[in-house]
Amino acid sequence: MLIVQKYGGTSVGTLERIDEVAKRVIKTIEAGHNVVIVVSAMSGETNKLTEYAKYFTQTPQKREMDLLLSSGERVTSSLLAIALQSKGYKAVALTGRQAGIYTDEVHTGARIDKIDTKKINTYLQEGNIVVVAGFQGITNNGEVSTLGRGGSDLSAVAIAGSITADICEIYTDVDGIYTTDPRIEPKAKKLNKISYDEMLEFASLGAKVLQNRSVELAKKLNVNLITRSSFNENEGTLITKEENIMEKPLVSGIALDKNQARVTLRGVKDEPGIAAKIFNKLAHEHINVDMIIQNIGLDGVTNLGFTVPENELEETKKVMNKINASKIIDFDPNVVKVSVVGVGMKSHSGVASKAFDTLAKENINIQMISTSEIKVSMIVDEKYGELAVRSLHSAYNLDK
Amino acid sequence: MLIVQKYGGTSVGTLERIDEVAKRVIKTIEAGHNVVIVVSAMSGETNKLTEYAKYFTQTPQKREMDLLLSSGERVTSSLLAIALQSKGYKAVALTGRQAGIYTDEVHTGARIDKIDTKKINTYLQEGNIVVVAGFQGITNNGEVSTLGRGGSDLSAVAIAGSITADICEIYTDVDGIYTTDPRIEPKAKKLNKISYDEMLEFASLGAKVLQNRSVELAKKLNVNLITRSSFNENEGTLITKEENIMEKPLVSGIALDKNQARVTLRGVKDEPGIAAKIFNKLAHEHINVDMIIQNIGLDGVTNLGFTVPENELEETKKVMNKINASKIIDFDPNVVKVSVVGVGMKSHSGVASKAFDTLAKENINIQMISTSEIKVSMIVDEKYGELAVRSLHSAYNLDK
Repeated sequence: MLIVQKYGGTSVGTLERIDEVAKRVIKTIEAGHNVVIVVSAMSGETNKLTEYAKYFTQTPQKREMDLLLSSGERVTSSLLAIALQSKGYKAVALTGRQAGIYTDEVHTGARIDKIDTKKINTYLQEGNIVVVAGFQGITNNGEVSTLGRGGSDLSAVAIAGSITADICEIYTDVDGIYTTDPRIEPKAKKLNKISYDEMLEFASLGAKVLQNRSVELAKKLNVNLITRSSFNENEGTLITKEENIMEKPLVSGIALDKNQARVTLRGVKDEPGIAAKIFNKLAHEHINVDMIIQNIGLDGVTNLGFTVPENELEETKKVMNKINASKIIDFDPNVVKVSVVGVGMKSHSGVASKAFDTLAKENINIQMISTSEIKVSMIVDEKYGELAVRSLHSAYNLDK
Repeated sequence: MLIVQKYGGTSVGTLERIDEVAKRVIKTIEAGHNVVIVVSAMSGETNKLTEYAKYFTQTPQKREMDLLLSSGERVTSSLLAIALQSKGYKAVALTGRQAGIYTDEVHTGARIDKIDTKKINTYLQEGNIVVVAGFQGITNNGEVSTLGRGGSDLSAVAIAGSITADICEIYTDVDGIYTTDPRIEPKAKKLNKISYDEMLEFASLGAKVLQNRSVELAKKLNVNLITRSSFNENEGTLITKEENIMEKPLVSGIALDKNQARVTLRGVKDEPGIAAKIFNKLAHEHINVDMIIQNIGLDGVTNLGFTVPENELEETKKVMNKINASKIIDFDPNVVKVSVVGVGMKSHSGVASKAFDTLAKENINIQMISTSEIKVSMIVDEKYGELAVRSLHSAYNLDK
């Protein structure tokens, strides 16, 4: 098989850890596979460099930040190649530029435009373990760019897609994707397989393992993504297209997103364009509105509710006060979003009603509801969040 | 004026120091000059990265070492550019590649082939302070290369030559070139000007400020080199072509090289080819022979003397024992080389005899003598080395 493996910051956080990674890579090679490795900077390194820049200014220019930050992954890729060579294996370290990763011109948050796989393929054909510095690329002008948060995952997925690798393994310090956060529900089980769409729901709902950008790219490029731990031999979770998942569980997991605040406008004039006005203004201020609920009004007025990330609530208040859309606005930061996710619910009814039943039995009031084909999300009081997760986890038999 | 300034590791050793460097650069800009800055890695950084690599192997592959080591200068160049930008100046950081520094393929000890100055010149014309990562370049294949010890000085000199800068200032933690080592002779005076050739004699004789490679390149490219301290405002020493030095002192300074060992072969057969045999063999083992003395022999045998760096003496012993050139070989690590250097001696006689007189008066026995147009070097017993320096310094009135 042709395998892309990506090792995150904690996985390469010390020289000892890099040595462990080298051993793991060699085990893959000895099993008969070809591998391309993508590495992050040693944990703490990117923060250190960012702090260095902030010594001079809180707003360093992004072109120079990219040059600065990209050095961290160059160090790890060189060291891992050296570690592999020292164990008698042919290895070569490549910068983002040398790996042919071309991006747009948006410094510190670039998007990958294309990957010129010539060099990677040549080195692979010559029997090398190819070690690529993640997180970075170059623009068409030859400027160094970086891909923003989760950038090394993106590098790995994009490379895997471009060289049509059989799998792309993302190594972190957690075992994979769980039916829910094991810190909330110790009975949470690791999932063997999950579809891209379910993963996207999980990620946006708070699972920290993978950024949505990477999952979206994997879906687009049809890359079989595996998240697993570099600290043990456990198997991890395969994220793949729905067709590859034979036995579709009704519900795959329960997600909890604590970074939510609810905004409710009472007595909004129920006339065309009022929602557009509010949400355009919020979008203009780069506030990420999540759930939006509007009911048909009575007597020409209606109630409008939506949620925003908790840390954007203050900014939201300012915007709302400015546009004066309603006399009575209720802001509540003490809410969480609990979501039931599963591709199986596409073909089964009753999933949503079971969720409502379950919370009702626990006397948890549901403030807002939003559904999609594969999830049911509910806004509840923060203090009931973990109880809601546990009772839903049990109601859908996820601990079995 | 168009000025190239190079700041060494201690000059950019901390964020505070980088800030000081930024202020100095701005002072130069405000005086109406255009500047290109070349920076080393923060002091200790290159050693740290080398130690990292040595965790895995004592002999890391050089291609990967170059990728690893080149990251240090990228960090400093980015940070200095950010510091300058934060003070309201237009600045841009360039890697060796972006600065157009092309080298041969010899990783970790590459030579600069050519500099494509297009990018540097464009950025200068746009009113930027151009900050270049020193020590590094790229090969024609697009591989990252580094220039070896003193590499950032070389980058600076090569850039200065290519853009025909008026001066190239090399900032370190010392004030410039002294008539001799001030730790040996506190009356040593800083030289205002010195010719390339004198500097070359000084450098090879132990002055640590500048590597010979940089001085040779400056001579070749006719770059006016100034070495000065980044820790004060003192003027430094201009190293320039002899024609630019109006008042040529008879003697510019006294150098002491402690890293010397003497080898004497007694009763060598005085026949053609014997010297060639010995020194070819030593060259083959990469032993740097310095002084060589051979007298016309008597009765078909002669004595042959030469010096090697003290740390290469053991290797030299092995070679000499193998070729068995003479029955009696005398190895003496306890010698030093004292040299009197000055372009003025080209046109004046009596400089050498004054040196011999001076040492004779101090009862210092001269074991070997070697002269060139601009220097007289003498091998003496190590314990008399500093006394010899002080007495010669005084004899030529260098303290006046």
